[in-house]
Amino acid sequence: MKLQFWFEYGSTYSYPCAMRIEDCARPYGIEVEWRPFLLGPLFKSQQGMSDSPFNIVPQKGAYMWRDLARVCEKHGLPLNRPATFPQNSVLAARTTLTVPQVSRAAFAKCIYRANFVDGRDISDPETVHDCLMSASLDADAFLSAANESEIKSQLREETQTAAEFGIFGAPSLIAPDGELFWGDDRLEDALAWTVNGTLRPPEQK
Amino acid sequence: MKLQFWFEYGSTYSYPCAMRIEDCARPYGIEVEWRPFLLGPLFKSQQGMSDSPFNIVPQKGAYMWRDLARVCEKHGLPLNRPATFPQNSVLAARTTLTVPQVSRAAFAKCIYRANFVDGRDISDPETVHDCLMSASLDADAFLSAANESEIKSQLREETQTAAEFGIFGAPSLIAPDGELFWGDDRLEDALAWTVNGTLRPPEQK
Repeated sequence: MKLQFWFEYGSTYSYPCAMRIEDCARPYGIEVEWRPFLLGPLFKSQQGMSDSPFNIVPQKGAYMWRDLARVCEKHGLPLNRPATFPQNSVLAARTTLTVPQVSRAAFAKCIYRANFVDGRDISDPETVHDCLMSASLDADAFLSAANESEIKSQLREETQTAAEFGIFGAPSLIAPDGELFWGDDRLEDALAWTVNGTLRPPEQK
Repeated sequence: MKLQFWFEYGSTYSYPCAMRIEDCARPYGIEVEWRPFLLGPLFKSQQGMSDSPFNIVPQKGAYMWRDLARVCEKHGLPLNRPATFPQNSVLAARTTLTVPQVSRAAFAKCIYRANFVDGRDISDPETVHDCLMSASLDADAFLSAANESEIKSQLREETQTAAEFGIFGAPSLIAPDGELFWGDDRLEDALAWTVNGTLRPPEQK
């Protein structure tokens, strides 16, 4: 059983979901497919927005940062609000596409920590380099591959695929039967659906 | 302990929250304060929107209706998508303000069933009349009171108060210390916060 995890490195609620998903999926024998995409182009094409709705609508932004802090505290995750939001995630997303699935969780979690804990610039090749290293990957090789035109096209295609799946926000989760779930707060539902085809919590393996 | 429940009769996710909140709050000895307001004026003033975002952005709308169906099924709640969305909730909201707190749950749930189960027009005085009757209230007296200018002003003031509390969507929940929670999917968190000041689930009384 495979659950597609569509994430955007700039997205706040993608952070707790990325940190939790492997641990939550493992007891049910669910494999997580890590699929990075860019939310900016979807915000633009679907809603005509050139910035995060959390920046455009201050009431939503104020609530989100408070809610995110509560959610992270609930799950025991550190959080430091980044100076820049959203960060430019293009390089990190491209790099992820060069990384084999088996190493994506480790790499992606390192990027999320860089963004939402360590206050680092995730568009800086040095940050991406460090995260590749911490995922035990050949950093120079993967960074170099990330700048190839084939990978750039692939990220555009993945973003288009996300739109075709009905995705409009991040994180989004897609069960094997195509059922779409939006938001970190739907992670448990998506796992239950993947096992049972309903929202009832499954038995753990 | 009192949890403020800010709801809009046209709002889809307010429906499961309204149907669940009394049963979920009771085990913790939490009293629910039912506070109707109008979301339309806040969408307009905060986001410049003249319609529901679920109508403006088709991708969000398609997802919401599917998600709502799953949520309702999870909680054993019937759901029939209304022909008109969102319905005009002004009369129902005004009427609620004339109803004492002790009877608001029964009346409000009847309006929500009329909207999201029975396919009735909740702006029709006959529908509101029937819901007042089913809450064992003097329907003619309350309907008449709902049309007084004092009540009309009160609803405008309540909507303004909602904005001052940071509300931008429905349902919204406000704990005694002012902590704001948005969405039916935050009901359990809001109850935990009301008891504990954290998101950890409290012991039931």
